[in-house]
Amino acid sequence: MRPISSTPPSPSAVTFEPEFVAGLKTLFEELIVFNRTLGLQITEISPGRARARLAMRPELIGHHVQQRLHGGVVSATLDAMAGLAVMSALGARHMDEPISARMARFGKLGTVDLRVDFLRQALGGHFIATAEVMRLGSRVASTRMEFFDGQGRLLSTGAAAYIVS
Amino acid sequence: MRPISSTPPSPSAVTFEPEFVAGLKTLFEELIVFNRTLGLQITEISPGRARARLAMRPELIGHHVQQRLHGGVVSATLDAMAGLAVMSALGARHMDEPISARMARFGKLGTVDLRVDFLRQALGGHFIATAEVMRLGSRVASTRMEFFDGQGRLLSTGAAAYIVS
Amino acid sequence: MRPISSTPPSPSAVTFEPEFVAGLKTLFEELIVFNRTLGLQITEISPGRARARLAMRPELIGHHVQQRLHGGVVSATLDAMAGLAVMSALGARHMDEPISARMARFGKLGTVDLRVDFLRQALGGHFIATAEVMRLGSRVASTRMEFFDGQGRLLSTGAAAYIVS
Amino acid sequence: MRPISSTPPSPSAVTFEPEFVAGLKTLFEELIVFNRTLGLQITEISPGRARARLAMRPELIGHHVQQRLHGGVVSATLDAMAGLAVMSALGARHMDEPISARMARFGKLGTVDLRVDFLRQALGGHFIATAEVMRLGSRVASTRMEFFDGQGRLLSTGAAAYIVS
Repeated sequence: MRPISSTPPSPSAVTFEPEFVAGLKTLFEELIVFNRTLGLQITEISPGRARARLAMRPELIGHHVQQRLHGGVVSATLDAMAGLAVMSALGARHMDEPISARMARFGKLGTVDLRVDFLRQALGGHFIATAEVMRLGSRVASTRMEFFDGQGRLLSTGAAAYIVS
Repeated sequence: MRPISSTPPSPSAVTFEPEFVAGLKTLFEELIVFNRTLGLQITEISPGRARARLAMRPELIGHHVQQRLHGGVVSATLDAMAGLAVMSALGARHMDEPISARMARFGKLGTVDLRVDFLRQALGGHFIATAEVMRLGSRVASTRMEFFDGQGRLLSTGAAAYIVS
Repeated sequence: MRPISSTPPSPSAVTFEPEFVAGLKTLFEELIVFNRTLGLQITEISPGRARARLAMRPELIGHHVQQRLHGGVVSATLDAMAGLAVMSALGARHMDEPISARMARFGKLGTVDLRVDFLRQALGGHFIATAEVMRLGSRVASTRMEFFDGQGRLLSTGAAAYIVS
Repeated sequence: MRPISSTPPSPSAVTFEPEFVAGLKTLFEELIVFNRTLGLQITEISPGRARARLAMRPELIGHHVQQRLHGGVVSATLDAMAGLAVMSALGARHMDEPISARMARFGKLGTVDLRVDFLRQALGGHFIATAEVMRLGSRVASTRMEFFDGQGRLLSTGAAAYIVS
């Protein structure tokens, strides 16, 4: 049987300027204050894709006995990462614009809707979240996301749509 | 045209003991630590329904310029409230059990999946979240949720499914 | 507790021309051939809302023993009705356009994503589907849908997003 | 960056009896009458996975001018294929049961909810749908689905949850 895999968006030949990557990193790790509350550490940004690390902390606990991560942390992280992946896809599409103009597109980005499927309990010291843009249109972007534990086990998957401009 | 409204679950004649309500409130406001990070204040718990208030705080900001609430706060809040509504529906179904046994059902509750639709930007000093159990089966509960601003404007809607036992 | 109800879109004072309503009815009942396969009968079209009747037929069966409606009929019907509700909302927004221009907007309408929650088995001789536009933006419309049996029991709920222009 | 791929369920060493595969094929292609209306041809059934082919036909058209497949055909097909993948996962788990007992589990299978993301218009002479079980619990199964055109382009993705027993 054909493996069920995403047909990836054609790999972009775009290479981002370090300033653009650093700008997105600061935006998503610090200026979006709730992402700091979550403790997202962006580890990769490439056209249409993003990846972050999240460390377990007491404030993020969803079940006091089992010490598992709150599902809301998972959904918030996946939404944040999908938004970052969309920003990177927009950045790659608009390389002709100055960095500031590409960054300013964040102001017009909006989550339309989000779905998260919770497959396994989120236990452990840290987690990895990834997001990929499945389609970038002129008005809407569609994304898929995955959430793993430190051993690479898939804990949750997600899908989200964004308004873009 | 018939108004599009939820056909409410048949109103339960169940009245919870104050200890059960207080126990759920403590569980959802304090023991689920991330709900404390969000700042959820449970204002009503009745069979199959729940309602909370959430105050805007700097840690919850999603956009530093527009000062709007992070979408992840909305989705985490709606997931939490739907879980509480399911706990209250389970509590109503199992009034023959001691309170401790009803509370212990939380340990077996799990979110299967969550969808959130973001309709309008979440701006303002406080917000209200409500959740309702649409169907409580023996294995799965289905819920709907809504998120309002302080003026009662509908900002987001959601749906989620839970494993129950 | 505050009833969980949709904050309705501000009731539009728009009254559609009979030709526009008839045109949408023909489009959704006949030109969208699969809707004819489903057997949708549009019973109401008003700004941002739509309603249809669907009769049970052998071709729509999902379980041969229980004789229940196939879940795919439910999801296809809800998608179709939400699309019609969006068309009616667009029609109300663009009453300054000739009917043909409003009808032509269908060519640019696209479903972004769809969620359906199946609450109860769909049994009986006929069913009712309703859809409501929760938000009509310039690029995306968000909708909610409900599916009832002939006795008015809520069987399924849905949410969908559409690209509009 | 780590490719965003599904962590596959551990490959099962289970080999189904030809009678079981044939029984599922008959069930999904013929006894579920609406699948016959859709024209699903099951091409593969393996533990936790399923795949089908669907030919374009006039009855399935969603847009008369563009001659594209109705979105409801996509969502119905993905729901059907995910249900079949769950049946095959249940079959693999219960190889100790006689075939008839495994087949009878279909009577207790129910879709809890379904999400479909529509990425690209469905045009062409035939289509391929695949489904994979991401998690098979004792009460709920979670699945992911994909819908391709004849050239292998990814047109739609989906996720669905099922009650199992």
